[in-house]
Amino acid sequence: MINIGIIGATGYTGIELLRLLKQHPKVTVTRVTTESYAGKKIDTVYPHLKNHADLTGEILNIDDLIAHCDVIFISLPHGHAAKIVQPLLAAGKKVIDIGADFRLKNAQDYQQWYQHPAAEAALLKQAVYGLPETGIKETLAKATLIANPGCYPTASILATLPALKAGIIDTNSCVYDAKSGVSGAGRTLSLRNHFCEITENVVPYQAAGAHRHTPEIEQALSAIAGHTLTVQFTPHLVPLIRGLLVTAYFKLTSPLSQQDVMTLYQNTYAHEPFIRITDHLPEVKHVRGTNYCDIGCQVDTRTQGLIVVSAIDNLIKGAVGQAIQNMNLMLHFPETLGLDHLCAQYP
Amino acid sequence: MINIGIIGATGYTGIELLRLLKQHPKVTVTRVTTESYAGKKIDTVYPHLKNHADLTGEILNIDDLIAHCDVIFISLPHGHAAKIVQPLLAAGKKVIDIGADFRLKNAQDYQQWYQHPAAEAALLKQAVYGLPETGIKETLAKATLIANPGCYPTASILATLPALKAGIIDTNSCVYDAKSGVSGAGRTLSLRNHFCEITENVVPYQAAGAHRHTPEIEQALSAIAGHTLTVQFTPHLVPLIRGLLVTAYFKLTSPLSQQDVMTLYQNTYAHEPFIRITDHLPEVKHVRGTNYCDIGCQVDTRTQGLIVVSAIDNLIKGAVGQAIQNMNLMLHFPETLGLDHLCAQYP
Amino acid sequence: MINIGIIGATGYTGIELLRLLKQHPKVTVTRVTTESYAGKKIDTVYPHLKNHADLTGEILNIDDLIAHCDVIFISLPHGHAAKIVQPLLAAGKKVIDIGADFRLKNAQDYQQWYQHPAAEAALLKQAVYGLPETGIKETLAKATLIANPGCYPTASILATLPALKAGIIDTNSCVYDAKSGVSGAGRTLSLRNHFCEITENVVPYQAAGAHRHTPEIEQALSAIAGHTLTVQFTPHLVPLIRGLLVTAYFKLTSPLSQQDVMTLYQNTYAHEPFIRITDHLPEVKHVRGTNYCDIGCQVDTRTQGLIVVSAIDNLIKGAVGQAIQNMNLMLHFPETLGLDHLCAQYP
Amino acid sequence: MINIGIIGATGYTGIELLRLLKQHPKVTVTRVTTESYAGKKIDTVYPHLKNHADLTGEILNIDDLIAHCDVIFISLPHGHAAKIVQPLLAAGKKVIDIGADFRLKNAQDYQQWYQHPAAEAALLKQAVYGLPETGIKETLAKATLIANPGCYPTASILATLPALKAGIIDTNSCVYDAKSGVSGAGRTLSLRNHFCEITENVVPYQAAGAHRHTPEIEQALSAIAGHTLTVQFTPHLVPLIRGLLVTAYFKLTSPLSQQDVMTLYQNTYAHEPFIRITDHLPEVKHVRGTNYCDIGCQVDTRTQGLIVVSAIDNLIKGAVGQAIQNMNLMLHFPETLGLDHLCAQYP
Repeated sequence: MINIGIIGATGYTGIELLRLLKQHPKVTVTRVTTESYAGKKIDTVYPHLKNHADLTGEILNIDDLIAHCDVIFISLPHGHAAKIVQPLLAAGKKVIDIGADFRLKNAQDYQQWYQHPAAEAALLKQAVYGLPETGIKETLAKATLIANPGCYPTASILATLPALKAGIIDTNSCVYDAKSGVSGAGRTLSLRNHFCEITENVVPYQAAGAHRHTPEIEQALSAIAGHTLTVQFTPHLVPLIRGLLVTAYFKLTSPLSQQDVMTLYQNTYAHEPFIRITDHLPEVKHVRGTNYCDIGCQVDTRTQGLIVVSAIDNLIKGAVGQAIQNMNLMLHFPETLGLDHLCAQYP
Repeated sequence: MINIGIIGATGYTGIELLRLLKQHPKVTVTRVTTESYAGKKIDTVYPHLKNHADLTGEILNIDDLIAHCDVIFISLPHGHAAKIVQPLLAAGKKVIDIGADFRLKNAQDYQQWYQHPAAEAALLKQAVYGLPETGIKETLAKATLIANPGCYPTASILATLPALKAGIIDTNSCVYDAKSGVSGAGRTLSLRNHFCEITENVVPYQAAGAHRHTPEIEQALSAIAGHTLTVQFTPHLVPLIRGLLVTAYFKLTSPLSQQDVMTLYQNTYAHEPFIRITDHLPEVKHVRGTNYCDIGCQVDTRTQGLIVVSAIDNLIKGAVGQAIQNMNLMLHFPETLGLDHLCAQYP
Repeated sequence: MINIGIIGATGYTGIELLRLLKQHPKVTVTRVTTESYAGKKIDTVYPHLKNHADLTGEILNIDDLIAHCDVIFISLPHGHAAKIVQPLLAAGKKVIDIGADFRLKNAQDYQQWYQHPAAEAALLKQAVYGLPETGIKETLAKATLIANPGCYPTASILATLPALKAGIIDTNSCVYDAKSGVSGAGRTLSLRNHFCEITENVVPYQAAGAHRHTPEIEQALSAIAGHTLTVQFTPHLVPLIRGLLVTAYFKLTSPLSQQDVMTLYQNTYAHEPFIRITDHLPEVKHVRGTNYCDIGCQVDTRTQGLIVVSAIDNLIKGAVGQAIQNMNLMLHFPETLGLDHLCAQYP
Repeated sequence: MINIGIIGATGYTGIELLRLLKQHPKVTVTRVTTESYAGKKIDTVYPHLKNHADLTGEILNIDDLIAHCDVIFISLPHGHAAKIVQPLLAAGKKVIDIGADFRLKNAQDYQQWYQHPAAEAALLKQAVYGLPETGIKETLAKATLIANPGCYPTASILATLPALKAGIIDTNSCVYDAKSGVSGAGRTLSLRNHFCEITENVVPYQAAGAHRHTPEIEQALSAIAGHTLTVQFTPHLVPLIRGLLVTAYFKLTSPLSQQDVMTLYQNTYAHEPFIRITDHLPEVKHVRGTNYCDIGCQVDTRTQGLIVVSAIDNLIKGAVGQAIQNMNLMLHFPETLGLDHLCAQYP
């Protein structure tokens, strides 16, 4: 068994990570740290885990983690992982950061978007941006530090990759209209998360390139395209707990049929266990509780437009499920281990 | 007092129309027809109106309507209004069709999108497309037959008009990503409206130009632009009862500042009582229960993109509130009469 | 016009009070105080009021209120009104406290339930418990200080009064199972109000007589019964914004028919403009946005049980609507003035 | 591997049963029948199962089921199972009816509550009412026909059993106030399930002993008490998909402390893997997706009242999870097999 530590275990991502890892056949969670609930039994903080999580939240102690863990997941607000990851790596531990600290390769970009200095250059270089379906599985197999992608970038990049790689879309035309459930904003209290503020509401925010996931999407797409591109990304909060849907708009560079595009998407992802190309447009409910990214395409012959819709569970494929997928690849486990039973509830 | 008849009073639009008209100081609702609940007291069908609607649903009887009403609103599935409007107009009645029968001027377009023949050519010609903020108030003042706009077109056209009229956007670039509450689909039972199917879900549908509101938007925008244009329109169902938000994406034809665009929008709508230009992006909750269309703009200097967000209550500005606004203009009442007290509840 | 001041105008009750008073034909709101948003235009804090509330939030200043207001509403956390009401009353102002400070007549009870000293004895004596349907309208007409009832007590007491007065129920048997929307807990941030914590959840809390509304219900019912009684009251939070439903369980002291009980309830409230006795069990949706209390009864002949269900909008009949009803009675206005247009939206 | 057939696989209970059985290590689902979707691949009807359910819906064919299945689950509207179960039993198959046909032992009671004749007397006698925690596990181990309990009875009976068995409550005093999610009403379309009708609503229904689960609760409690008793049961629909909470009210026959009652409940259920006695009152969110029944108790010393709250997932412990638990007992598998990984998602 591989021993696992979770730094920041009592936020929504941390606790969901714990739940999933408890069901993974090859790992044991030995340490969970928490600032808010140190000293408390985890199942008193989250009663849904009663009988399933005999663990006590602990204050972060790097030496203790090194002594008891082989792999460490970090689920902290940005800026924190960069400060603590060094000794873990030095001790030969593998680290997966679910936060944003190592996602942007360019330190100046990071500084500009996050308003504080980036992690050290060596760390940025060492970190692998862990979106497994982008042709990097061999790299992940050797990685020691993984920057787990953001939820919006995961859905946006996966919706674009086949079309972009095949060169069928105008790279100046990419529009991403994203709708996210509220859990994406975490458990921290804010007026935006108040039940009465978001129920019966739809809230666009940080439009016009103001959201930090914009450069993350652009970095990945530019790498695929082979040249720098910018995109139009607008997130919206909608009144659901979990789920994220991206509606992507492209212009085709030449006329293609619906079947052409479907075949392209099916072929590109033919061997990806967590991507399902759907005949109809996907819905967030179909992926809830799973690590799937469902993707549907529609060509509009009237406008020569291509609409691609991708749906994920923001907490799973958009966060901790993808982190476990990355861990599996890192540890040379089957990619789906511990994630394959996650068949969605319906309704 | 003006006497009013409502044909199709027990759907969600019909009953909301009745509620608003009961509060209008210059009209009396004298007849309400209903296929499903004929012979029933309206307040037994909709107990929220108890003490407020001493009316009995009646079978549609054109002669009776002619004898007792001055203005008739029609809230029926498409195809029905076209068949019954003739005698009402012949008898000198004013008619407002909340449905789709007279919206498309081109009979062939109608046939193609609605799969049955359009209304007679003379009626299509007579009908005024009643979006009052498009510079047609004088026309409305003389109208006898009004085609009340669809909910998606109302929000989409109002979001575009200032930019399109001013010629600042690439007319080949218009993308409309719409999110609508479930009441827009009406009270008719369908799996899509089942609580368990839409709660905790986001459902894109009729993408790639398949939705019937597409030609309605294109007809209005082409008229403003002075040339034919096509748009990319994708509706989504989100889990709220009321409210509709359109996020519109344009490419600016030349660099403009945020302030330039704000000023343009403010000036264009400076005298419109039901349009509010907001400093922040609008939210559907802020217009719930009102006839307002809130509009916010953001220029993205990185992409030379313009994002415009408009929010309406799909049942009010998107349906019956706009119908009353049209009635007011038709009858030379103050435009806001009976609509100004509709201050939204919050939360 | 009567000049109104609102102390604590930017919570959910305060802002809803402002919205309703703006539509009242005989009053003008001249002062609104707020701790959180002093110096801000109200419609920037609550954009739904844009064009409807040209007021700026001010720091609480008693002298200023005395100079500019005739009637003052107080919407503050408990303990605060008791400290500021004295000078207002001394200056001849009429005061309606929407909070709890003057509801319990017994100062020791108050101390026990609220964990701090009660208001001065003279104030407790002066205050009238403002549940207008309990036969106190003449008293309210002379009142200068009104303790506006809590939301749960309003629904519970109104559900019980006819049966209790008529002596048809075992006073040892009263059970109140209440389900409330989240707005009842206010705009203050807490984990309980977090969208992700209450959506798809039902949360019982402060059961077994631990909720502060218990003594308030008991005080009112004991007065009606003519002897001290205790009740079993359990509140539950359910995932809706507004609305409160109480299911009350009684044992009949002798066999009565459904019709007997319906007639009793109808007769008791025959002249009450805000109580509707319904044929079917009431639903919260039917009273949303209104000052109505809908009440339905069912006799269970198998158990000799009587089930009474009452539904209110917790923010209106459960708070500010009732406060305006009390103001109307205090000022000798028609009881329904400014409240009669509040026809509920449906859906 | 045991071969399983599901009759009625495409309703909400049927499809959830299929999902759970796909994860059970000792069984294979070989046949699924469906009236609505015969001939269709299951994962086209329910896309969340894509890649997880390579099964085609078939028309009900008893001979085919006999040929290919060892255990058959029936999930049909009441009245249907009684007609088809005979040949299955005759062929030596084990049958679990998730519907109501065999729950009431008294045929006259059944006829009265369900308005059509009960199953044959021999079948009623043969059927075991499958609430495993009521001391019947040895009987279940020999059973061939199981009547799986209703959702409301499951939560109500489990909340009552320890107190009733210990004789600490007045059996004339039992009140059950139940709140259920909408999935309990199934996938069949009705106005009650329309998103716009139940969102932002709370709907009491079939109060005063009109609900068919009343006699089911009474039958079980009478058996425990050793004498006939009647109860007051009122169900409410609340706006959530899944989850059921029962708030039960009793009168203690003599004064007991909170600790006394907690100990009683803990001891009674000490060896039950699916019952968790909670320190705080349970919430439906904590059991969502699991087979747990969480139970909390509170003694009210003021009233000598005992409030017991139980929470289940209506589709799992209230339906198909309990059915699998029964199957495990029937087949002498560990009771929790295939159900232990069902750790709830949170949020």
